[in-house]
Amino acid sequence: MYKELDTSVCTLMSPGPVEVEPRVLRAMCTPILGQFDPEFTEIMNETMAMLRAVFQTKNQWAFPIDGTSRAGIEAVLGSIIEAGDRVLVPIYGRFGQLLTEIAERYGADVVNIETEWGQVFDPQVVIQEMQRVKPKIVAIVHGETSTGCMQPLKEIGEACRAMDILFVVDAVATLGGTAVKVDEWKIDAAIGGTQKCLSVPSGMAPITFNSRVEALLLARKRIERGLVEPGKYKDNQNRMIRSNYFDLSQLMDYWSAARLNHHTEATSMLYALREGLRIVLEEGLEQRFRRHALHEEALTQGLQAMGLKLYGNSECKLPVVTSVSIPEGIEGEAIRSMLLKDFQIEIASSFGPLKGKIWRIGTMGYSCRKKNILHVLGALEAALIRYGAKIHIGRAVQAALDVYHSPESN
Amino acid sequence: MYKELDTSVCTLMSPGPVEVEPRVLRAMCTPILGQFDPEFTEIMNETMAMLRAVFQTKNQWAFPIDGTSRAGIEAVLGSIIEAGDRVLVPIYGRFGQLLTEIAERYGADVVNIETEWGQVFDPQVVIQEMQRVKPKIVAIVHGETSTGCMQPLKEIGEACRAMDILFVVDAVATLGGTAVKVDEWKIDAAIGGTQKCLSVPSGMAPITFNSRVEALLLARKRIERGLVEPGKYKDNQNRMIRSNYFDLSQLMDYWSAARLNHHTEATSMLYALREGLRIVLEEGLEQRFRRHALHEEALTQGLQAMGLKLYGNSECKLPVVTSVSIPEGIEGEAIRSMLLKDFQIEIASSFGPLKGKIWRIGTMGYSCRKKNILHVLGALEAALIRYGAKIHIGRAVQAALDVYHSPESN
Repeated sequence: MYKELDTSVCTLMSPGPVEVEPRVLRAMCTPILGQFDPEFTEIMNETMAMLRAVFQTKNQWAFPIDGTSRAGIEAVLGSIIEAGDRVLVPIYGRFGQLLTEIAERYGADVVNIETEWGQVFDPQVVIQEMQRVKPKIVAIVHGETSTGCMQPLKEIGEACRAMDILFVVDAVATLGGTAVKVDEWKIDAAIGGTQKCLSVPSGMAPITFNSRVEALLLARKRIERGLVEPGKYKDNQNRMIRSNYFDLSQLMDYWSAARLNHHTEATSMLYALREGLRIVLEEGLEQRFRRHALHEEALTQGLQAMGLKLYGNSECKLPVVTSVSIPEGIEGEAIRSMLLKDFQIEIASSFGPLKGKIWRIGTMGYSCRKKNILHVLGALEAALIRYGAKIHIGRAVQAALDVYHSPESN
Repeated sequence: MYKELDTSVCTLMSPGPVEVEPRVLRAMCTPILGQFDPEFTEIMNETMAMLRAVFQTKNQWAFPIDGTSRAGIEAVLGSIIEAGDRVLVPIYGRFGQLLTEIAERYGADVVNIETEWGQVFDPQVVIQEMQRVKPKIVAIVHGETSTGCMQPLKEIGEACRAMDILFVVDAVATLGGTAVKVDEWKIDAAIGGTQKCLSVPSGMAPITFNSRVEALLLARKRIERGLVEPGKYKDNQNRMIRSNYFDLSQLMDYWSAARLNHHTEATSMLYALREGLRIVLEEGLEQRFRRHALHEEALTQGLQAMGLKLYGNSECKLPVVTSVSIPEGIEGEAIRSMLLKDFQIEIASSFGPLKGKIWRIGTMGYSCRKKNILHVLGALEAALIRYGAKIHIGRAVQAALDVYHSPESN
């Protein structure tokens, strides 16, 4: 027979999944309620209210999709894209490719512009392309974990609004770790992640969208058979949303007073998300973003003191992911493997053109704390010494401590 | 600010979600591992092996979809249906309508046959329709929780195999509570539920499929952009699976040695599923089905002793759901509300033509135990007395105790 679950407790410093907040783990132990119990629907409403605060939006619609982050992306893109719609996706890493992939599967006519990995777009370049392509939708990644870069969004959002283009943002990596200002940046729909800066396990994808998106959804709405009175069944065959599970027009009825039956809400994951959001709001968004920036500073100072080079343009660095060039002559996977096996620390490799070239270290949510930063720096140094890398020995942890002990940090 | 989660502890006797096994709740508290940590991929493999045992199959492919039950249904139907495919869906309740709905959204030419609610199909009627319609797929519900009926599948499965039709079964309500013999009944793909007889929270959908389905998936396979070397990108535009998230051909690469990046597995939910399956196998399938049958017997004897009438054809009764006709002159929702508010017991109403006509009481998984059966019978009797229903007072709990105290029960 299979033995009782008895796993190692690891230090998770990849760009997700990261360590789960202990309070979130405990919240998942709560015995469940029925899905239409008023006590439970109140928990649904509270979660929506907290999501609005974290997304910095007044949107009515802010709720999780019951699936992992890409489920949230697919729910948003799949519910607004109709076959033949033109979608502009600027790509600066692997997750821009994913947006392209999903949009194509829903029949979009996707136009890509690409920039070198390690860089982001000058907003004017995107805006010029918008003027040329005249898309219905612009979809872009806010924080590219594959490269460790972050795209400025405000100018693009304002241009989208002026041109009546829907602006969809993948904020999976950034939500809860650095500012995602949905209303101020004129984002029409955004998708967050749970297993990154919210420090909730993977399995839910918080989304938000505004009344511009809502209007489009209502025009495509088709309540499913079996839930409408015979005769009131609206076919809407031509424009109906292609997925039932990801049909945001039906999910609006589930996440509002109508409480129309759709799926059975993932109770324990909702408890987890609620607790994760509660922790974020108790800490306070600004304080939380400052904490993330502090530990990023300690990490990057430590890595550079060791003699390692950060990858990518520092002006567009994603504050919650640090990409490090693997030193000449060192096999990246050997170091990663030693970190996991000997030190029980996980850091990440990367994808596509960056495979074997960089490591990626996350500073996200509960994983983003002094204990972990000092541990990862010390262990990485030891592993590099073990493999004969030419580094400055003994400096990394000291440089990080300098950051922590400086007067501004306290 | 929002207060700490502090919910009532309810007796959940609807046909799902039901009470979660305490061991499953505790398993979810386990700190998480990274998704490609060998310790974690071993947990993935163990979960697959246990799912095979519960589905009674030798299929290689048995894994959860990260979403609720209907996500599993959509993953299976959406991955095998191509636009214009003919799909036969026999309907005997609300969830047959859901299969129809999902198949239609993926472009199927759906043919329905319907039978009166409270009945199931004579397999010969379905087989005759298969001969007339010549579908590519037959999709049917095994246990209809909306009515409390269960469809015999073996003859239909054998006929499908003989006619080279793919046989897809929604076993969401039955898996883990009564036999679902995937191989013996010639089921090509089946979908189970977590929040019902497995007593795991909602949020995952175990599925299994055989090599006949695999062959079709491989013909439609398209690995997503960003994961293949440039030049090796296979367009497969015409036949590609419409959803990225539900693309079983990519999920096969995720749930096998290839471990190709797709989503980030929902770690804590996988821990929950693993523990739920472990409990099922420790109890033993046959013993577990006998336990479910025993408590069903106690419940139905109790209800009938009270003078209530069971709804539906008793010959096709679903052993894990009991439908009860609401007595003349009684408002069903008033009783349900009293049960929830005063007794903290949840039972269910129903859908469509049965709305207001029946209550549905689940005997599923961890909720299916003597304490709960006696509690629900006593409380229902008290609520009915309170509302002036003409019932036989004092007999229901006694009749259930007779079942529990009979020599055969021990």
